[in-house]
Amino acid sequence: MTHTGVTAPAGFGAAATTAGIKASGKPDMALVLNEGPEFNAAAVFTRNRVVASPVKVTREAVGDGTLKAVVLNSGNANACNGAQGDRDAREEAQLVAGALDIDEGDVAVCSTGLIGDVLPMATIREGIAQLASGLASNAGDNGPAAAEAIMTTDTVAKQAVAHRDGWSVGAMGKGVGMMAPSLATMLVCVTTDASASSQALDVALRRATKATFDTLDIDGSTSTNDTVVVMASGASGVRPSQEDLDAAILEVCADLAEQMQADAEGVTKRVTITVEGTTNDEQALNAARTLGRDNLFKCAMFGSDPNWGRTLAAVGMAESDMDPEKISVYFNSHPVCVNSTGAPGAREVDLSGPDIDVRVNLGTGGPGRATVRTTDLSHAYVEINSAYST
Amino acid sequence: MTHTGVTAPAGFGAAATTAGIKASGKPDMALVLNEGPEFNAAAVFTRNRVVASPVKVTREAVGDGTLKAVVLNSGNANACNGAQGDRDAREEAQLVAGALDIDEGDVAVCSTGLIGDVLPMATIREGIAQLASGLASNAGDNGPAAAEAIMTTDTVAKQAVAHRDGWSVGAMGKGVGMMAPSLATMLVCVTTDASASSQALDVALRRATKATFDTLDIDGSTSTNDTVVVMASGASGVRPSQEDLDAAILEVCADLAEQMQADAEGVTKRVTITVEGTTNDEQALNAARTLGRDNLFKCAMFGSDPNWGRTLAAVGMAESDMDPEKISVYFNSHPVCVNSTGAPGAREVDLSGPDIDVRVNLGTGGPGRATVRTTDLSHAYVEINSAYST
Repeated sequence: MTHTGVTAPAGFGAAATTAGIKASGKPDMALVLNEGPEFNAAAVFTRNRVVASPVKVTREAVGDGTLKAVVLNSGNANACNGAQGDRDAREEAQLVAGALDIDEGDVAVCSTGLIGDVLPMATIREGIAQLASGLASNAGDNGPAAAEAIMTTDTVAKQAVAHRDGWSVGAMGKGVGMMAPSLATMLVCVTTDASASSQALDVALRRATKATFDTLDIDGSTSTNDTVVVMASGASGVRPSQEDLDAAILEVCADLAEQMQADAEGVTKRVTITVEGTTNDEQALNAARTLGRDNLFKCAMFGSDPNWGRTLAAVGMAESDMDPEKISVYFNSHPVCVNSTGAPGAREVDLSGPDIDVRVNLGTGGPGRATVRTTDLSHAYVEINSAYST
Repeated sequence: MTHTGVTAPAGFGAAATTAGIKASGKPDMALVLNEGPEFNAAAVFTRNRVVASPVKVTREAVGDGTLKAVVLNSGNANACNGAQGDRDAREEAQLVAGALDIDEGDVAVCSTGLIGDVLPMATIREGIAQLASGLASNAGDNGPAAAEAIMTTDTVAKQAVAHRDGWSVGAMGKGVGMMAPSLATMLVCVTTDASASSQALDVALRRATKATFDTLDIDGSTSTNDTVVVMASGASGVRPSQEDLDAAILEVCADLAEQMQADAEGVTKRVTITVEGTTNDEQALNAARTLGRDNLFKCAMFGSDPNWGRTLAAVGMAESDMDPEKISVYFNSHPVCVNSTGAPGAREVDLSGPDIDVRVNLGTGGPGRATVRTTDLSHAYVEINSAYST
């Protein structure tokens, strides 16, 4: 049978279970095992200065460029739990290491869910035992089950695969809210049977996240738990060039990022914002992010309202160079504002579809350009996020 | 009779009319006249780089420290209308100057409403004529009518008065959304019968706005039209000390800011955020603003959900110094997080009332401290802002 997601590449096993962390009784723990023969790995983490305990443990584990397993749980972020949280995350790594007969320092730990509740360790211990025996008896494709077990407010499981000649890259991810550079609120596990050094993986992963997850900005909020891990088994025996590795890892990350945007909390519109006409790309990115986080703009998108004045008001506050008298705005390719002045028919542009393309030229004549993907701000977003912990 | 708002101080007249700019048929133009004997003035404006035409005209007019009249309209922002917008704003000043027999350079122009629609100048011309004759026949208290005529999505007119021994300060303002440093989306006109130089007024106004409108952050969005004007008639014959002038102008600005927060679009909660324990006040202010703009935090406030983890996740991204392991959070004075770890009973704190007080100590031990006022993010906010132009 064809395996999917993280188990698509050769040399990887996965397991999932319902340990009982989630009150809903839905699956809540997953394990991904690299069976080798190589164990090179890399990871990128949240830029938030408040980091969850599992992030600390994983950062340490991947420090030597080697990982053999990743254990993940949903339903509890194990963030802001002080020394107890650190001890619990470390115990998870120890338990997985013991069950799989690997080194504790080769286990990554990822958690997602509510911040500030201590992990139910009895449940976690039982869950890890179940995962280990699930892995041992693994016959089928456990990729989908693992992807499902890391969901929080996600409505669909998210997997991706990039097939190459003789090797492949697989991935699973979760994340639908609190998505901002860097990263989305997300856990992502990428696997490949390519033979690749940890340095090559690190380069490829950073390039891919910069172009994908880092340009996905749903609500400007950034999580304490964001983690993207890549593991290479070398089981294919193929050692791709850096360029080919970059492209394949970018492909699965782009695929997952698109799935995350489509499943974003309360989304009714997928909005792609491109800013150009700045001195450099960084300035364009600043302006695109400022617009993507502007609540008035996002509410207008929800209402299919071509209120382009809000676009100008938002970018006018961006830390970006611009000529305030020469800003142009296009909604779905229709010019709605030219040289900072309304264009004929601007109020009649149809934004009723699920995808809205916004292009802003800041008028300096420079070559800077950047794209950010966001969503509208809807009633459902407010609904979902107004009663998360209660 | 006792006059209120801008007409409370001696030496000021006001008029309001329904010119027909608003489709709703509600009052939409106001005029405030300084009858002297002094005509000193000062103003502060939006920091947005995209500025409306009336802001350009008013900035120029107040450049010499003198103003005799302010004409205001709601229903149309006259922003992003290019050279036509500039011409229209200038014509407004000319028409007012002609009708009142004053210099065009002594007329401030303020507009608020939808961005990007050209001003209906025939309507505006008629409106200015009505205002001038209303002013001439003025017998009663036109403060409330003027305050009403500048409302957009405001649900109540906003006036304030500070009485002193022999002199006073009056004010009117509008603004309920798009309120962020600097300033709120707002037009504010402050009047005083004190005798004060334009320099003294400028100092007092900047101190007052910094402590009031600049710390009011409803949605992080900043308008193209924000203007706060102060005019002094000297009609009381009293020349207060700078300190006394500062205090009186601060008083009316604080009063208006509180009314704006209470009337903010979709507000169901008034949230006061105080950040302390940073190296200096500026760092504290950065963190307080970051928290005040975090949608997940604001949604939790709407849901009366003491989800303090979002507070840590938000401040962890702030450009402020902090000790990530020593952050403490208090909701309505209850400790919910101590040293970045949940406190007993944190999930049971009652946030059901209309006022929520949030205090965050970032744990550096420094003396920095700042307060920002914001609101929750509610369904009504989304509703109001999703169909503004259509």
